[in-house]
Amino acid sequence: MLKHVLHHAAELDRLFHALADPTRRLMVERLSRRPATVSELAEPLDMSLSAVVQHLAVLEASGLVRSEKVGRVRTCRIEPAALRTAERWMSERRSSWERRLDRLGDLLGEGAEQTRTPTRNETRRRRP
Amino acid sequence: MLKHVLHHAAELDRLFHALADPTRRLMVERLSRRPATVSELAEPLDMSLSAVVQHLAVLEASGLVRSEKVGRVRTCRIEPAALRTAERWMSERRSSWERRLDRLGDLLGEGAEQTRTPTRNETRRRRP
Repeated sequence: MLKHVLHHAAELDRLFHALADPTRRLMVERLSRRPATVSELAEPLDMSLSAVVQHLAVLEASGLVRSEKVGRVRTCRIEPAALRTAERWMSERRSSWERRLDRLGDLLGEGAEQTRTPTRNETRRRRP
Repeated sequence: MLKHVLHHAAELDRLFHALADPTRRLMVERLSRRPATVSELAEPLDMSLSAVVQHLAVLEASGLVRSEKVGRVRTCRIEPAALRTAERWMSERRSSWERRLDRLGDLLGEGAEQTRTPTRNETRRRRP
């Protein structure tokens, strides 16, 4: 269990670290439209091919990008499952906070009306 | 416009950098349950108070946490809008990729049936 928690923590470390760089986010944006070769990824970027390859290595280590070499051409594609992992962590934190606001709202409602209003809870939880 | 784009990039850099550390994520988790004083945040952590304050400074710079000092007590709370900004960036990339899969699916469908199946597109987009 602890091993799993630590593994998940390391995975989130790598994911958020990979996304904390504007060049790497640009590469993810580019790959979210379609797969690309390393040269295609490098083309709009103002940096050496070796710097691009280093950024790519960080993205691959995070699981956000997979690449495959056929002949002399390496093609990269996005791995949406990794994006979902990071999204889930954030939405869980946000809903935990929103549930707290709901409970506070309920308590305030109780104080004001001396009755509970359960539908209010439902309505607020569906907030996008 | 460019200024706005660069500002947004810097904001995302700070957000993802703040989340790339397990201690800071623990602090965000803690604060997503309820606001806490700096000492309460430090209590379960195996580090000096000054290290905690440094992590807190990174979280505040990212906009994920706000704090307020009343008398000698500083109380921290989460800022869900910042979480939403990071979530939005990721879900936009993910849906961009999923739209691409939809188009590919449509093309393959067209090839097989020689007709388009517009409802398939709708169904796949609602995938959680």
